[in-house]
Amino acid sequence: MDPDAVAKAFVEHYYRTFDANRAGLAGLYQDGSMLTFEGQKLQGPQAIVGKLTSLPFDQCLHSISTVDCQPSGPQGGMLVFVSGSLALAGEHHPLKFSQMFHLMPTPQGSFYVLNDIFRLNYA
Amino acid sequence: MDPDAVAKAFVEHYYRTFDANRAGLAGLYQDGSMLTFEGQKLQGPQAIVGKLTSLPFDQCLHSISTVDCQPSGPQGGMLVFVSGSLALAGEHHPLKFSQMFHLMPTPQGSFYVLNDIFRLNYA
Repeated sequence: MDPDAVAKAFVEHYYRTFDANRAGLAGLYQDGSMLTFEGQKLQGPQAIVGKLTSLPFDQCLHSISTVDCQPSGPQGGMLVFVSGSLALAGEHHPLKFSQMFHLMPTPQGSFYVLNDIFRLNYA
Repeated sequence: MDPDAVAKAFVEHYYRTFDANRAGLAGLYQDGSMLTFEGQKLQGPQAIVGKLTSLPFDQCLHSISTVDCQPSGPQGGMLVFVSGSLALAGEHHPLKFSQMFHLMPTPQGSFYVLNDIFRLNYA
C-alpha cells in the first residue's frame, strides 16, 4: 500500500465529506481523537463534529494544493499535512488553510483520525 | 510539564537556531527522522541538515504566528503545528509558511524530531 496514495485518498474523502455533509465525518474520529481548530481544543467525535457543524457557514468547497505524508512511528500511524483553500458561499475570496492529520490504523485495516490541527493562513 | 509550554520552548529554540546556525539543528534529529521540505523527502540528520544548509539564502529571520500542540499517542510524543513568516535578507516581503513537527521523548528527558513537514503558503 503506497502511503502517498493512502494519504491522498483520505484527504479527498475527508474534504468531499466535509463539503457535502460535515456530520458524516464523525465516523473518522474516536473517543481519544483531538481537534485543535483555530486554537480551540476539542476531544471525541461528538465535540469535534459539533464544532465542525456549528461553523458559521452553510456551503463550502475545499480545494487541495499540497498533500505530504510520513509514517509516524512503529504503531503504523501516518502524518498527513495539507495546504489548500476554502471557498465559502457568498464570499469572493477563498481562504487559505493548512491542516494536519495523524491517522492511526484500525483493526479493520482502515484508519481513524487521532490528531487534527487546523489553521487559516491569513494573508 | 505543560505541553503547550514545551511546544513553545521547542519552537523558539528551533527557529532561533535555524536563523543563527542551521547546522546546529543536527542534534534535534535522529537516524529515523524525516523531513519533507516543499515536497522533497529527506531522512536522517545528515541529509536533513544538508538540505537546510543548502537553501539558497544566507540570512533569514522566522516570525512565529501560531503554535498548536497535541499529544500524539501512548509513546509520549507530541505534535507541534506552527504558522509564521520567513524574512530573507534582500527580500521585501516575508514568505508565509506552515510547519509541523512530531517530537518524541529521549531517554534523557528531552525530545527529538521524528517527523518534520514544511510548506510555504503561497498567496
